[in-house]
Amino acid sequence: MSTNSFGRLFRVTTWGESHGPALGATVDGCPPGVPVDEAMLQHWLDRRKPGQSKYTTQRREPDAVRILSGVFEGQTTGMPVQLMIENTDQRSKDYSEIMDKFRPGHADITYWQKYGIRDYRGGGRSSARETAARVAAGGLARAAIAALAPGVTITGYMTRVGVHAIDRDRFDAAQIGENPFWCPDPQAAATWADYLDGLRKSGNSVGAVVEVVASGVPAGLGAPVYGKIDTDLAAAMMSINAVKGVEIGEGMAAAELTGEANADEIFMGNDGQPVYASNHAGGILGGISTGQDIVVRFAVKPTSSILKPRQTITKSGEAAEIITKGRHDPCVGIRAVPVGEAMMACVVLDHLLLHRGQVGENRGRIG
Amino acid sequence: MSTNSFGRLFRVTTWGESHGPALGATVDGCPPGVPVDEAMLQHWLDRRKPGQSKYTTQRREPDAVRILSGVFEGQTTGMPVQLMIENTDQRSKDYSEIMDKFRPGHADITYWQKYGIRDYRGGGRSSARETAARVAAGGLARAAIAALAPGVTITGYMTRVGVHAIDRDRFDAAQIGENPFWCPDPQAAATWADYLDGLRKSGNSVGAVVEVVASGVPAGLGAPVYGKIDTDLAAAMMSINAVKGVEIGEGMAAAELTGEANADEIFMGNDGQPVYASNHAGGILGGISTGQDIVVRFAVKPTSSILKPRQTITKSGEAAEIITKGRHDPCVGIRAVPVGEAMMACVVLDHLLLHRGQVGENRGRIG
Amino acid sequence: MSTNSFGRLFRVTTWGESHGPALGATVDGCPPGVPVDEAMLQHWLDRRKPGQSKYTTQRREPDAVRILSGVFEGQTTGMPVQLMIENTDQRSKDYSEIMDKFRPGHADITYWQKYGIRDYRGGGRSSARETAARVAAGGLARAAIAALAPGVTITGYMTRVGVHAIDRDRFDAAQIGENPFWCPDPQAAATWADYLDGLRKSGNSVGAVVEVVASGVPAGLGAPVYGKIDTDLAAAMMSINAVKGVEIGEGMAAAELTGEANADEIFMGNDGQPVYASNHAGGILGGISTGQDIVVRFAVKPTSSILKPRQTITKSGEAAEIITKGRHDPCVGIRAVPVGEAMMACVVLDHLLLHRGQVGENRGRIG
Amino acid sequence: MSTNSFGRLFRVTTWGESHGPALGATVDGCPPGVPVDEAMLQHWLDRRKPGQSKYTTQRREPDAVRILSGVFEGQTTGMPVQLMIENTDQRSKDYSEIMDKFRPGHADITYWQKYGIRDYRGGGRSSARETAARVAAGGLARAAIAALAPGVTITGYMTRVGVHAIDRDRFDAAQIGENPFWCPDPQAAATWADYLDGLRKSGNSVGAVVEVVASGVPAGLGAPVYGKIDTDLAAAMMSINAVKGVEIGEGMAAAELTGEANADEIFMGNDGQPVYASNHAGGILGGISTGQDIVVRFAVKPTSSILKPRQTITKSGEAAEIITKGRHDPCVGIRAVPVGEAMMACVVLDHLLLHRGQVGENRGRIG
Repeated sequence: MSTNSFGRLFRVTTWGESHGPALGATVDGCPPGVPVDEAMLQHWLDRRKPGQSKYTTQRREPDAVRILSGVFEGQTTGMPVQLMIENTDQRSKDYSEIMDKFRPGHADITYWQKYGIRDYRGGGRSSARETAARVAAGGLARAAIAALAPGVTITGYMTRVGVHAIDRDRFDAAQIGENPFWCPDPQAAATWADYLDGLRKSGNSVGAVVEVVASGVPAGLGAPVYGKIDTDLAAAMMSINAVKGVEIGEGMAAAELTGEANADEIFMGNDGQPVYASNHAGGILGGISTGQDIVVRFAVKPTSSILKPRQTITKSGEAAEIITKGRHDPCVGIRAVPVGEAMMACVVLDHLLLHRGQVGENRGRIG
Repeated sequence: MSTNSFGRLFRVTTWGESHGPALGATVDGCPPGVPVDEAMLQHWLDRRKPGQSKYTTQRREPDAVRILSGVFEGQTTGMPVQLMIENTDQRSKDYSEIMDKFRPGHADITYWQKYGIRDYRGGGRSSARETAARVAAGGLARAAIAALAPGVTITGYMTRVGVHAIDRDRFDAAQIGENPFWCPDPQAAATWADYLDGLRKSGNSVGAVVEVVASGVPAGLGAPVYGKIDTDLAAAMMSINAVKGVEIGEGMAAAELTGEANADEIFMGNDGQPVYASNHAGGILGGISTGQDIVVRFAVKPTSSILKPRQTITKSGEAAEIITKGRHDPCVGIRAVPVGEAMMACVVLDHLLLHRGQVGENRGRIG
Repeated sequence: MSTNSFGRLFRVTTWGESHGPALGATVDGCPPGVPVDEAMLQHWLDRRKPGQSKYTTQRREPDAVRILSGVFEGQTTGMPVQLMIENTDQRSKDYSEIMDKFRPGHADITYWQKYGIRDYRGGGRSSARETAARVAAGGLARAAIAALAPGVTITGYMTRVGVHAIDRDRFDAAQIGENPFWCPDPQAAATWADYLDGLRKSGNSVGAVVEVVASGVPAGLGAPVYGKIDTDLAAAMMSINAVKGVEIGEGMAAAELTGEANADEIFMGNDGQPVYASNHAGGILGGISTGQDIVVRFAVKPTSSILKPRQTITKSGEAAEIITKGRHDPCVGIRAVPVGEAMMACVVLDHLLLHRGQVGENRGRIG
Repeated sequence: MSTNSFGRLFRVTTWGESHGPALGATVDGCPPGVPVDEAMLQHWLDRRKPGQSKYTTQRREPDAVRILSGVFEGQTTGMPVQLMIENTDQRSKDYSEIMDKFRPGHADITYWQKYGIRDYRGGGRSSARETAARVAAGGLARAAIAALAPGVTITGYMTRVGVHAIDRDRFDAAQIGENPFWCPDPQAAATWADYLDGLRKSGNSVGAVVEVVASGVPAGLGAPVYGKIDTDLAAAMMSINAVKGVEIGEGMAAAELTGEANADEIFMGNDGQPVYASNHAGGILGGISTGQDIVVRFAVKPTSSILKPRQTITKSGEAAEIITKGRHDPCVGIRAVPVGEAMMACVVLDHLLLHRGQVGENRGRIG
């Protein structure tokens, strides 16, 4: 039992602080024989890397990942894989401001209250830098999925920045990589650019909604009743820094539907597989995948570290005003997209392995 | 590792099917010396019990809980507590309809696809009857919380049924127990009564939103970074049958806020404890409780078992129309309220124990 | 995490006390489609049942096992299997003797010191009655092994009672079921009968050594470095009441061998599989099965509940003499044989599933 | 669930191979506020370090440990502690001998059969080098124990090398650090020196028995019935490379005792605490510590890598003779002493935390 670990058979433990010498992920349970190298993992880390546009923190980190164990001659061996990322841009600075004052909306105060000691430099363990380790582990999960279930694809994008949502009618998957916001709606991307420019200049920040879709996942992944694939996805996404809500398929809006409207009717496809008339369920029934797209969505709150002055207290209990200078994200949701993808990859792989272990090929045929 | 278990130190494993001889919860890790008896647990089960109004299933189950182990002379001993509920109203009926046809929106098809065998009677393991075991375990958790952290209260209620939400300005906690909907807004309760009458008569169903609040939880519960208290709550609530979304504090709406608006400013209270100007965070920062109310909300989709005919397929792959007769809930969200409370109780107790184990009293003082 | 659970994918949680209403095992992770019924489990329980000869406790318990969940139409469904055994012979008696006095060599004192409360009736949770639940779970494991790896057999027997060991040259597997001691050496069995008669009459007890062998286990089960199959066997056997030592293969005697003598030389068999010239390793290399017999041995200490007077203290700290009257075993090792077999079955099944999940069929061929 | 992890609240995951770039331990759950630095850990690593006498492998590794996370300003923060040891003496050599041939008594063949791929260099993950990571983690556990339960001491020593055991009458704790064998009997140490010289020169190796004692451990640690402290110790020790047997207290010899002889009689000490007339139980009753010395003993088999020619097969199934040249230990038991101590430290700390979490201070008083 480790509170810094997730997954059952594909077990990821992350470690490290924002301004320590390094951070990383210890991954146990990756199947043997998976082709992987550092470049394959770096690909995904580069997508999350800070400082790539003016819309994310200007901290300069190469985020170069090293594989320290578990890979031999280009393949996993089934042994633990240690993925390490050294911190290089731990800019020497004056921490007196956040050393003693608690940023509102930030973990500063609760870490202090809980532990009586905290590495305040850059947020320490509670920094979003921790998610770099997740992305590295997610890259390994993707490599293993590619070997085990080659048809699976995992794609994340933003559907909302503050008050501006995408228009689903303009959804174009090809656009996702064409703007700094992982936005599938080019018109929304333009709106967001202006909107975030304004927020950034005023020293403010804003929240966002990220959606991640896994396609090609075979039917039958997930397990009753606390190992449901949606349960694991909810935990995985809620564990990402600043996430305050998680939805599967119809999500919170399911509350407004009738049973008649919500039922995804089933038909038999030409290939002898069931097809569904709709996907309100987000690809999951009773916690088990249907074979449809698995759709998860999560809300990221706005960064707490802003230039706007806020009222707070100090460690000694005195009233104070705080302004957080530094290299922060006006919309941390942007960098959460590759993180959400990584978590989806880990959950899908974990359930592929779990199904294989606990059920084997003992599936029910239809038709 | 068990997919039918949740919790770390307070570990609950539920077992049993809708129409088997019994169901229950095996609870390991309850601290010793907690006063508890069957009547204390029955109190909570009675709140969830079906057949108490025309708005829930008419199945008649006494849901009488027996304590088979772990309690001696009125106190827990620290040994596993077995809580068993016998199924008594397994009405003999013709299951040929759902034995071969898959209900749209239901786990019928995925259980079949995954396992190649399923107890189709009443939904088997995927039935909401499983939640009776959770409520029993939650009752035990409440008893332990009362012993360990007496100031904690846990209250659930509905905030939405279909298109009708409560008006927060009319929120009156005293009303929650006064209507069959756990509704804190008497005007909304009246609206829901009419609305559900109509749905019930037409053989339809509808979704709902449930909110659960834990007050008096001490600051410092929760743990980085996958053992966050909000991560555990998200998993706990998402694991409840039919839940499709989970929110903490501001929830999905946090995406629309700026950092300035979202920051819960901190002041020093007269009692030497921090007080917050607002609670957008839902009582959790960095995954750790602040001492404010912990607020979680979840959406329950409409029951899939409805009298409206829907298109589906049979096990042999043939097209079919299905109407689910039987004793089902027009709004299963109603019975989810005590279940949500039970899950909150289990999570809070688990983190009380975990904090005590891993941190002890080593907390940081403010002031 | 539960301290009353063992196993990874085949996860067994036992519950119940010696003199409570019932005890049992909650088993999660049994693969679906395994043919099993109560009679199959009862077969193994009957072997462990007390009161079958004058050499074991005269408590009369039918130890009738009921399957309360997870089995449908004669097959497992993949859902949790609840196995319950009601206690029927909780003979009303005067417990004042052991209620206040601690039996030397017994858990009485440590349970009291740890928990501040204990169910003293018949030893409560620390009674060897708990092992009935293990045997039930082991029966289920055997059924699953029969389905997944039909060539596996698991056999336990005693190799020593007190100062009298078997002669390996007289080892005859066919004799094991022919005497009340699971003794493969009929001459030793006769010696033990006289020896135990004497001990029983004098109110004394004695220890024993039990050996369990699993044959036909495929090569490749087990995992580095804390999930070794020998690590799991050591934990499984040491967790049985009164066990004080566990050996794999050569065991403690391996310390006296040279590397040259200890090396099990390898040859190629006619069937294209490796064969070994010897089995000092007990069928396990680097924690992973070789395909040879897996051999584990454990020492059971003598029962602490004896008629011989011993010095002890009371709860109030006063010196006292204690004689434990009641229905106890002169050699509790006898009833440990089916328990050891059950633990072996659970460990082997668990590793069959774990290998399938984490490695699949990705094995290295030889030749 | 990770097979490379052990411990419940103090959770250690080791990673790394003999000839990879580095190895280490990811430790989660260390309490906050524990004073620790690299020098404190290095102290324990230096005791295990190879190449310190002619009786252990001549591989030259500084085994310098780095703390990469979880420690801030000289104290633990409650966050994961990453302990990394770089491999520096990965001497470039010809591996063609062991790349294709399986060493008898070694994990070569089983790793190949299980995974279909293995890092054969120096034994890869199955090398005893992995235990360096355990010793680092054990050093951290010792630091935490010093903070939480300052009276605890943990001491390991050898009691047997091959056919030569120590004489308990000559036991002198002060001698343990005075010879290269951690031998408490100086006369035995002299015998072993000659004996091992002979074995080393002839290219042979031999087994050993190691005993580890924890003194000052409070009564009440351990938990029923699979979380017994002896169960955890059995698993911990059996997981060490080459261990084939584990004993608690009287161990295998308990089988030869009568109940009368085995009962550790209890008296009341002058300090109001129970005292025991003997310690056959090894400080553990019912899986829970009594407050006496906790005594565990384990047998280490002789190193498989020897210069004596042995018969084996190649990957392609051909018969072959093998001689393992290289820098190996004539008695790997010597270096197992600090490893056994480290495992004891981890288990004791884990149960200190677990007791605190699940039971708190709710102990039963005597007197």
